[in-house]
Amino acid sequence: MERTHIRRHPERASFDQDDVDTILDEAMICHVAFVEDDQPILIPAAFARAGDWLYIHGSPLSRMMRTAGSGAPISVSVSLVDGLVLATSAFDHSMNYRSLIVFGRGRIVTDPDEKHRALDAIVDHLTPGRREHLRPMTDKEVAATMVVAIPLEEMSVKVRKGPPGRVDDWPVWTGVIPLAQVAGSPVGDGPVPDHVEEFIRSRSDPKTSMS
Amino acid sequence: MERTHIRRHPERASFDQDDVDTILDEAMICHVAFVEDDQPILIPAAFARAGDWLYIHGSPLSRMMRTAGSGAPISVSVSLVDGLVLATSAFDHSMNYRSLIVFGRGRIVTDPDEKHRALDAIVDHLTPGRREHLRPMTDKEVAATMVVAIPLEEMSVKVRKGPPGRVDDWPVWTGVIPLAQVAGSPVGDGPVPDHVEEFIRSRSDPKTSMS
Repeated sequence: MERTHIRRHPERASFDQDDVDTILDEAMICHVAFVEDDQPILIPAAFARAGDWLYIHGSPLSRMMRTAGSGAPISVSVSLVDGLVLATSAFDHSMNYRSLIVFGRGRIVTDPDEKHRALDAIVDHLTPGRREHLRPMTDKEVAATMVVAIPLEEMSVKVRKGPPGRVDDWPVWTGVIPLAQVAGSPVGDGPVPDHVEEFIRSRSDPKTSMS
Repeated sequence: MERTHIRRHPERASFDQDDVDTILDEAMICHVAFVEDDQPILIPAAFARAGDWLYIHGSPLSRMMRTAGSGAPISVSVSLVDGLVLATSAFDHSMNYRSLIVFGRGRIVTDPDEKHRALDAIVDHLTPGRREHLRPMTDKEVAATMVVAIPLEEMSVKVRKGPPGRVDDWPVWTGVIPLAQVAGSPVGDGPVPDHVEEFIRSRSDPKTSMS
């Protein structure tokens, strides 16, 4: 469809399922865009993917959740900034990034099994290995949480990596500064469990974005 | 106005100018939401603030830039994830974050002085101190860049910080894992200039989000 056709920098369009998977795995948040009275609104949110669905959750009273669940057209963007690309002219500066936009219509998840799977997926996505240690959610907590599923069908993926595209003969350093979302020392009482240690280890070092 | 009234978690609403300033300073990208044929679309973009304006730039052919410059209603979100908040129930898990949404209508920047100031601000925002070392932009490069200004007038700011809001008597570690966008070792030839060293130093350590 027209809206998933990438017009600007078509060389950055990706149709690689691995890119989709790693973007959805690595990112902590998405942004959800919806329309209210002709005004586009976008709100950051936690999310998870399970199968061919992207799940978001929130209060049944939130306008984002209500709109996303109503079947109105929405978009969800998941973006990772991997580095600053420094060239000789401001014009040729860029960023290395991986980003994905899903276009679709959400549905409220009413099936209790799917709802539990979606909420589990959100916990597993943010801190793998933690869920089995948690106090199970009460019926009241589940009832106070709305889950909306958006099909991962129509999407646009863009990836930029590597050094500056153009470098002139000019006396300034050019190259890439890698960037990544990194975890610091945990703040809380008592010994930190393995799943927290593992999470911090898995997010301890900005990877090079030159690969 | 109704759309800037924060309904969910009103205790997280911030009216602190310092929060606005630090969110706009620290964030590398924004997301711009616009509407095309009833479909909300959102796209990540570089940006900078100068005075009471938020500036974005791009190709005059990009639909995002054309829509943003047309005066149609748009929204811009700038979000920072500061930490994972780990509680005893999945329900009480949260994130520490600072986020800002600007609602408005953009205008294409046609004044040459303002356009140069805006482009300078974008370079300064991403890598302070680099601009003076760059080859000046050519007239052709300036002409091939569209700049759109969005007034920083109507906005909504939300901040969550600190430990979990509720912790039950349950045998699992609770607390916060701080997160931050951190720079790694630069990739390029030759000695790295001071402004690159300084950038990396300024983004070397995830700050605690418990303050």
